[in-house]
Amino acid sequence: MKELNERIAEAFARIRQEKPLIHHITNYVVMNDTANLTLHLGALPVMAHAPEEVAEMTSMASALVLNIGTLTIPRVEAMLKAGKRASELGIPIVLDPVGAGATKLRTESALRLIRELNVAIVRGNSGEIGALLGLEAEVKGVESVKGVEDPAGAVRKAASLWKSVVAITGKRDFVSDGERVLGVDNGHPFLTTITGSGCMATTAIAAFAAVEKDYLLAAAGGLACFGLAAELAAQKASGPASFKVHLFDELFNLTPEALARGARIVQL
Amino acid sequence: MKELNERIAEAFARIRQEKPLIHHITNYVVMNDTANLTLHLGALPVMAHAPEEVAEMTSMASALVLNIGTLTIPRVEAMLKAGKRASELGIPIVLDPVGAGATKLRTESALRLIRELNVAIVRGNSGEIGALLGLEAEVKGVESVKGVEDPAGAVRKAASLWKSVVAITGKRDFVSDGERVLGVDNGHPFLTTITGSGCMATTAIAAFAAVEKDYLLAAAGGLACFGLAAELAAQKASGPASFKVHLFDELFNLTPEALARGARIVQL
Amino acid sequence: MKELNERIAEAFARIRQEKPLIHHITNYVVMNDTANLTLHLGALPVMAHAPEEVAEMTSMASALVLNIGTLTIPRVEAMLKAGKRASELGIPIVLDPVGAGATKLRTESALRLIRELNVAIVRGNSGEIGALLGLEAEVKGVESVKGVEDPAGAVRKAASLWKSVVAITGKRDFVSDGERVLGVDNGHPFLTTITGSGCMATTAIAAFAAVEKDYLLAAAGGLACFGLAAELAAQKASGPASFKVHLFDELFNLTPEALARGARIVQL
Repeated sequence: MKELNERIAEAFARIRQEKPLIHHITNYVVMNDTANLTLHLGALPVMAHAPEEVAEMTSMASALVLNIGTLTIPRVEAMLKAGKRASELGIPIVLDPVGAGATKLRTESALRLIRELNVAIVRGNSGEIGALLGLEAEVKGVESVKGVEDPAGAVRKAASLWKSVVAITGKRDFVSDGERVLGVDNGHPFLTTITGSGCMATTAIAAFAAVEKDYLLAAAGGLACFGLAAELAAQKASGPASFKVHLFDELFNLTPEALARGARIVQL
Repeated sequence: MKELNERIAEAFARIRQEKPLIHHITNYVVMNDTANLTLHLGALPVMAHAPEEVAEMTSMASALVLNIGTLTIPRVEAMLKAGKRASELGIPIVLDPVGAGATKLRTESALRLIRELNVAIVRGNSGEIGALLGLEAEVKGVESVKGVEDPAGAVRKAASLWKSVVAITGKRDFVSDGERVLGVDNGHPFLTTITGSGCMATTAIAAFAAVEKDYLLAAAGGLACFGLAAELAAQKASGPASFKVHLFDELFNLTPEALARGARIVQL
Repeated sequence: MKELNERIAEAFARIRQEKPLIHHITNYVVMNDTANLTLHLGALPVMAHAPEEVAEMTSMASALVLNIGTLTIPRVEAMLKAGKRASELGIPIVLDPVGAGATKLRTESALRLIRELNVAIVRGNSGEIGALLGLEAEVKGVESVKGVEDPAGAVRKAASLWKSVVAITGKRDFVSDGERVLGVDNGHPFLTTITGSGCMATTAIAAFAAVEKDYLLAAAGGLACFGLAAELAAQKASGPASFKVHLFDELFNLTPEALARGARIVQL
């Protein structure tokens, strides 16, 4: 995937050049981590959820992350407000349906956001995407304990149904725009030992989507970039907390050239 | 305490085998840390506080943490909802009365949760438990600046009064079910230099309570486990932040065998 | 600035001796970091924002931080309540107008807090302070993308207008009480790669203001202390996350003597 890798590396270089603003309406658990990750990637983070300011904040952003962890009803309303402004202005929305399938509130809120907004990319684990598709899948808290049987088929189906790019992350990540399906093999098991690694992957995708209009490429790029940093970090880690420190350092130090060499993307 | 240590080690092994879900309704300061700690211990964390989903989320959990830091009135209502479902289903509730004694809201909310719910374990510092008992004690912010004179007596009294296991943590931790009193001597002064170490101890207790129905043992086990990891981490730390990184790494790497050897529990 | 450095070092020693309580009403992104920083400096943090308890909590504090990141309308009301109690009791209020200039809500809320409360110190970046002064300045999210042309003049003007000490932080920090203007040259570019470094600087200032009634000195002291720790940390860092770990460790290990030697403050 020589050409793909180079296009991803170019997008990565653009993030650092353009420093796009990424507006997050996200959960309280990961706010600090995803703000830091945004900075380390080269973009600018802002976290804002007051209904009085979300549309104004979104309008100066280059991407909008909607993440439904620690969700409440007023938060969904703020997401809809920000999302509508983003849709009007052509700003890509990246949705992370954290815990969809675990509770009615999360499943229904995620589906409502997909239905009412022009979502560019959805990223979830196998259980979450499966639950949103109505497939047999199980989410315990925010963990996929029973994923879909055919993730390549599921992302393709979801992408076609929701008219957006869809990613299922796991040992292999699957990304589709409804026609093409890509697999991303970067990553490391240490990612499953820290909280918010899925949310961080979503933020990485949003940073790429802020500078790359081919959202399939943006999703694969964000995941490859994040996963590659994880691989490098794991070599230096002696546990999950030192892994996380190294993960952030590696993301910051990662060059577009290293990404072009290290991204492991396959066409499925 | 050979036998006790072995029972604790067995409980620790069960956490890693069963990966119980620990539902937290907790404060914003420690959400990320306690979610990570839950994972590092081998359990699964979920943070959810919307009134519309708390009961549903609790019903799939194996323990429920109620932590009153950064408390608000709606949050207390969510805790009551989740707690009532937990009580119905026999899911152990672990209460952390952060800052009780500092403000009326915190003292009264903690007492209300104790009164209206079937709380399995309460863990606080000496000032907090003292304040809840109406003893002379002083809490400044969330810090115990004047503890109870007789912590062994206080936990026994509180446990008997509240019909739950009660733990006062400090240089020596005291745990009682109203009859037996145990002392846990694991720990390190570095724990007082990071925020949320009490909240983390509560989460460790909850992970043990999720797999061990003898809640006195669960409380002592969680505290010994957390304190032992702190001792190991302190040897490698050059300050509070590197201590915290090592603390999390050590918890992740701790084996049941090491816990059986290293737990320092005494019968009082 | 021999004498200034020594007075700052004395204030630093007093923080560790008196362990003042610093009440924060702050944003969700930095709650954990600023609570930790408060502890590492030697003070005690408390985070509380419920309208029912903020005044009571503030009344036992030695300084009050009002930080408008992730702002909501109810949060502003809580800030006003706590701030009024602080004003009555002579407890110094330190305001951080995060993102002022980016949205109307933030600009107007910051100006309202300045107008209605007796604010001791305001700390912002160049864009935020410029926007609050109505100067040509631009804030993108929470980042100053176009600062004021004459920061020394701007802090003097703002201080005189708002009747408080004002600090603009950046490569050189500028601090004024409306007459005197100080420059603080401690710091490191790594601070721009982590989220919340401005908020942390504000917390450091608040810890100094809790023990030092000359608020110009307190502001310069907090900034020098924080910036010096950053310089020491940068020597050991291999990226932003390891920088942050070292920053916290260095702050904890910093002695008043080292601060007296390392503070780089100039009279402008």
